[in-house]
This record gives sequence, C-alpha cells and structure tokens, in this order.
Amino acid sequence: MIRQRTLRAGKLTERVLKLFIATGKDEVHSLIQALNIQDVLRNSKIGLICGTHEIKDDEIDIVIGAVSSDMTSFLNEWRPIFSRFHLIIVKDPDLKEELKIPEGFNLDVYTKSDIDRVVGSSTSILFSGYSCRYFGYLVSLKKYIISVDNDCLPARDNKGFLVDAVAQHITNLTTPATPFFFNTLYDPFSEGADFVRGYPFSLRSGVKCALSCGLWLNLADHDAPTQALKTRQRNSRYVDAVITVPARALAPISGINIAFDREVVGPALVPALRLAGEGKFRWETMEDIWSGMCVKVVCDHLGLGVKSGLPYVWRTDRGDAISSLKKEWEGVKLMEEVVPFFQSVRLPRTATTAEDCVVEVAKAVKEQLGSTDPVFARAAGAMLDWVKLWKSVGSSSSPPGV
Amino acid sequence: MIRQRTLRAGKLTERVLKLFIATGKDEVHSLIQALNIQDVLRNSKIGLICGTHEIKDDEIDIVIGAVSSDMTSFLNEWRPIFSRFHLIIVKDPDLKEELKIPEGFNLDVYTKSDIDRVVGSSTSILFSGYSCRYFGYLVSLKKYIISVDNDCLPARDNKGFLVDAVAQHITNLTTPATPFFFNTLYDPFSEGADFVRGYPFSLRSGVKCALSCGLWLNLADHDAPTQALKTRQRNSRYVDAVITVPARALAPISGINIAFDREVVGPALVPALRLAGEGKFRWETMEDIWSGMCVKVVCDHLGLGVKSGLPYVWRTDRGDAISSLKKEWEGVKLMEEVVPFFQSVRLPRTATTAEDCVVEVAKAVKEQLGSTDPVFARAAGAMLDWVKLWKSVGSSSSPPGV
Repeated sequence: MIRQRTLRAGKLTERVLKLFIATGKDEVHSLIQALNIQDVLRNSKIGLICGTHEIKDDEIDIVIGAVSSDMTSFLNEWRPIFSRFHLIIVKDPDLKEELKIPEGFNLDVYTKSDIDRVVGSSTSILFSGYSCRYFGYLVSLKKYIISVDNDCLPARDNKGFLVDAVAQHITNLTTPATPFFFNTLYDPFSEGADFVRGYPFSLRSGVKCALSCGLWLNLADHDAPTQALKTRQRNSRYVDAVITVPARALAPISGINIAFDREVVGPALVPALRLAGEGKFRWETMEDIWSGMCVKVVCDHLGLGVKSGLPYVWRTDRGDAISSLKKEWEGVKLMEEVVPFFQSVRLPRTATTAEDCVVEVAKAVKEQLGSTDPVFARAAGAMLDWVKLWKSVGSSSSPPGV
Repeated sequence: MIRQRTLRAGKLTERVLKLFIATGKDEVHSLIQALNIQDVLRNSKIGLICGTHEIKDDEIDIVIGAVSSDMTSFLNEWRPIFSRFHLIIVKDPDLKEELKIPEGFNLDVYTKSDIDRVVGSSTSILFSGYSCRYFGYLVSLKKYIISVDNDCLPARDNKGFLVDAVAQHITNLTTPATPFFFNTLYDPFSEGADFVRGYPFSLRSGVKCALSCGLWLNLADHDAPTQALKTRQRNSRYVDAVITVPARALAPISGINIAFDREVVGPALVPALRLAGEGKFRWETMEDIWSGMCVKVVCDHLGLGVKSGLPYVWRTDRGDAISSLKKEWEGVKLMEEVVPFFQSVRLPRTATTAEDCVVEVAKAVKEQLGSTDPVFARAAGAMLDWVKLWKSVGSSSSPPGV
C-alpha cells in the first residue's frame, strides 16, 4: 500500500494546493496552470481526515479508573479542563472504601455491581486495578475517549501555562498522522510546523490518527527496577513536540495519559495481559503495554496512525518501587517474548475492523506464545472474550474512515 | 537479527547492572544474587559502544562547504565553538571570488585545483555547489565529521544559552542509538532520561550511532513551494529532544547540520543525485536527501543508528523561493520514485561495509530506477565512482564496531 501511495508521482495534496491558491500570487497561479496539477479527491476508505473538523464536547468521554478512593484533589485540579465534558468514573472492584467525588461534574460512576451486570460471569476478563478503566471504554457511547491515571495532575508548559491535555489530545487525533515517512521537524500539522524538504508530497495527506499517547513530567513511567534505582530522578524535560510513531515501529505505550478514537480502535485497547503478581502500582502492571502493542499492530494493519508526545501530565509520587521488584521481573522477562511476537505478527487482508484484527492477534498469540507461558494463553482468551463483549454491548467499530 | 536479540530473554544490560550495583542497597544486591543475573560481555561485532569514551579534539574535522566567498561573520560567530578543532573548508569550484577567512583558525582550504588533482577527470562526480563539502569528507583523516552550511549561525536554547552544536553532535554519536523499539521519552541516553516501562531490556544496550542530524531555528529546511508560500514563517519551536529514527523508517535527512562517524559510514554520504536545474539554494538541491536515504538504508542493513533532533543551528534568510519554483518541481516529482525504491531495497548479507552497501544500492538504482529518468542512471554511476574514489584516496571504512 505504501508503494502504491508513493508512486502517485508528482501529485500535490489538497492542503498544499489550497495554500497555493490562497496566496493569490500570479506566479503561483500560472505555475499551477502550467503544470496542470489537479485537485485530488479524498479517499474516504483510507481515511484522510480534516484537521479543521470541529469536535463537539459531547463527542468526548473522559474515562477515569478510580484505583484509590479519594478523588477530591484529582478532580478539583482538573476542574478547569474536565468540567465541560462528560466523565466516566469506574471504581476498581477491589476497592472497599466509598469514592469521594467533589460536586459540579457531569459524570457517571460505575462500580462492581455494574460490571457484574454488564459483563456477567462468563468471561475471563478481570476489571480490577488499573484495568477497571477498560470497562469505561466499553460502556462509553462517544467517539473519543481520553483517559488519565488518578495520580496525575495538569502539567504546566515551559512558559508556566497550564496544559489543556484534552485540547492537545483532540488536536493530535483530529490532525493527520504521518507513519510512512518520518518528518524531522516533528508533527507537520502542529502550529508553525510543516513538512521538511524531501518529504514526498504523495504522503503529506497522512492518515487518520487513532491513538494519542501523552507523556509525564515529574515522575516518569519507569519500570520498577529503574524506579527503584533512581528514586530521586524526576523528569523535568518538557519536549514541545508530537511525533507519529513510524509504521512497523513499536513503542512502550503507557495507559497513564492517552486518548483514542473509540469508534475506530476501541476494541484494540484490551485488558488482556495480567501478571500473576500484578499489584496496584503502575510498575507492577503490563496490561497497557500489551494493549499498546496490540493497538499499534492493528493501526499499522488498518493504515491508521499513532502519535506520541504532547500533552504532558504531572505525575505525583507514590509507592515504594523496591518492594515491587520481585513482582516486576515477571513482566520484564515476558517482554522478551512479547516484542518479537508483535514485531513479526502479520494480519490477513480479511481483517478490516479493529474487532477482526484483535481476533486475529489473539489467534496468533495462542498459536505462537500459548505454550511459552500460561499468561499468554489467558491473554488470548481475554482478547476473544473482549471482542465478544464489545459486540454484545453494542459498541461495534466501523472500518476506519467510514 | 532483531528477533535473535529480543529473544535473549530476561537479560539485563551491563548499564542497568552497573546502576544496580552502584546503588549499594542490600535489597538490590540480594535480589541480583537471588536471580543469578550475570554481567554480559560486550559484543564487539555489533558495536555496542561506550558513552563515556572520551573523544579527543583531534578525532574531529569540521567540514564547511564555502558556497559564498565571505566567511568572516560565519566563522567569527562560530569561533567559540569551532576554534578548538581542525576545519576543512572546501571552496565551491564554481565560485569565482577569493574566500575571505578570518585569522585564528586551524584550517585547510581546498579549491578547484585540489579537487582536480585528487579526483582527476575520470569521474562522473561533480563537486560544485553544496556538493563541494563531500570533497572534505573524502580527504579528511578523522573519525568524526561535523558539517554545517555557511548560512547557519550558532543557535540559543530555550534558556538563552549558546548551543554547542559540536558537543551535542558528538554526544549523539558516542551514545547508543535505539532503532529497534521507540522510546517515548526520546533518547534514553540523554541526561535525566531513561527507558520507559515496557522497553525490552535486551534492546537497551542499543547500537552504535553513525549519523546525527541536527535541526534549524528561524528558517526551517523547507522545499521551494512551501518556502514560497510561507515566506514569513519562521521556526521558533526549540524541541529539547534527540530521537533515534526507527529501523526501516526513512526521513528527509538534510545536509545543513549533520555529523557522522566517517570511519563507519563515510562512503555512504555520497554526492550522487544532481538535478538538471540544480542551483545555489538549498531548496534547489536534492543531493543530501538522496544521500540521507542511502545512509539510512546502509545503517539499517549494518545495524547502526541514525539520530535526529538536537543540536539546532540558527539558519539565516536568503534567496527568493518563488523564482526557484520552476526548478524544484523536478526534485519534488523524483521523490515519488525515490522513496518507494529506498523503502523496498534490501542489501545482501555479503555487504558488510559501507562501501559494499553503496555499491549494492547503486546496482539496484541502475536496475530499478535507471530507465525511469536519466538522473537516476547518473546517480548510480556517481555512487560507484565515489566508492572507487573513497578507496583510492585511502579512506576505506571498516565494518562497524571493528
């Protein structure tokens, strides 16, 4: 597909054409005429999208997994940013205490009884701990989901301004991604940025962005060994950039601060890999890393993009990583099997939706990793159950761009 | 090779181990013993390199292509950074006026007569215009080359401090690159940075970095159409990051501000693609874009890394892009053939040095692109001539890491 696209030789994109036309310069106009450059029709199948499409507030759900009970300071700090939107709060079913939630938000809270009612007992999926948020993804009716861990607060940028994480995530999702050629000046659709000399014009339309992965100031998302060794290390580097992760490149996608187009890739964000010793700290989980590799493979297959970078959130300290070290090794070792698997897995052409793709990935997991460790067979089962659940709850996704 | 590496399950890198050991915490020590983690021997063939290796000033040549005659303000501005190093200045053979060079530098100037003497007339390579710097790459005897266009001045960072572009390039080249898995917090070997949770430990040693591509503040490196349309657009976004361009991803590598390990990839930086209408402005050239794709393909094949990002230089305005538009279309159109070619070209295992690889790429260019446009047949010829020249001048490269 890449080859086919890039071989459309000498075709300028609509965006560039419009800019040309907008300049009104006689030389440019006569040049366009001389070169006989035609305006191109958008290919709705591939999903070239329009960055100027206005997103309404009610197209967005903010999903928060409540893994601790007191949500007061979290929600109050986020109030200036979140209060316009509908919130879905899913209480960790293992959490005994009642949630403390401040007034003034438009929100729905889901608890263990809701999960039991919707999901029933005929599933291998566990929604406890950080995985509780996935229940929110399931019951949401909105196009876009934004999800932030409840130990994160709004960050400030280099100039001291509060970062509107929602606005930045939506910008990332509603401007094209460029996975087929790396732009050295980062996201060409950022304000003030553009494509660098040598970037093929046929690839400048980009593809629909399905997943936006934000970053963390203060406490970065390290694994337990790194965290244990560098207890005092803080991330203070505000990198003012968004990047499309290139096609076929995998990344450690963290669920701490993400947004996605639920209609298009929702089912690919799946709570599947659960460590035997999974605990209540991020560094004791792998569910998001697994899901991240799954969604990246699905996006590569469907011709969708994944962006990483802005927005930052401010991640606050908690927990003692040293005591998590014994648990973490399991996850660390599993990665050595998981990465080559996801690097090599290829999906059949018949897989045209995220659901199809997840089913295919699950089959391959069972086949190629199933005998390595029982955790993988369970993950494959959970993925299949998840797709069934997604369909039964009525959230079925459409092929991208439709 | 990727698969093989990542399958070395559960092996921690030397670097992490050292950090573990350095902490001196009893828990960590006993854990290491309990898990029986062994220190791993470095694999000299793959070229895992040591970030702490001290680079001496006399291992570096700064190569400047003099495409305009008055070098006074350029060199004076760079004096605080360049004066410690040996400079190679290559005068564009088309330039009639004598060069004006201020006092106080350790430098050698090469002119048309030197080029004629060394290269002779039995070659298809043209060293005029921006391509004159390649003659400097050829005659250098140093391990590292840094090259900056002479319309660039030292930049200042976000805090207003002068950027030492040489130091940053050398840091990029002497710390490992990580092309096989994307680290969301950018170069994990930058100060204060590390690998993100989920990054496989078996890939954390990284590979030798062979090419460092810096960026531009003020006037970005746009093509003529973009420049012509956005005459007033300036790049003011200082992105404080270095990124390894993932394996198999191509990027528009610009020759404006680069550094490379000449011993390892020197021959892959080749002045091969020359547009019929090539002029004296960057946006009228494609030589560096072609060479950049060539060197990226060679690095991917040899298991070497390419980094992009810091350092910035301040690029000053000149020229009228509108008048270049007619010339530029040729380059823009050629990219549509060039990119799919470089995305699909695969080199044989027998190619173990940069020279071998360039010869193989040249063969493939001739075969696959030769009939499309005469410019490609000429490029293939120039690549073969370049390798011969490189060998005859005595700069032959070694296999990486040896």
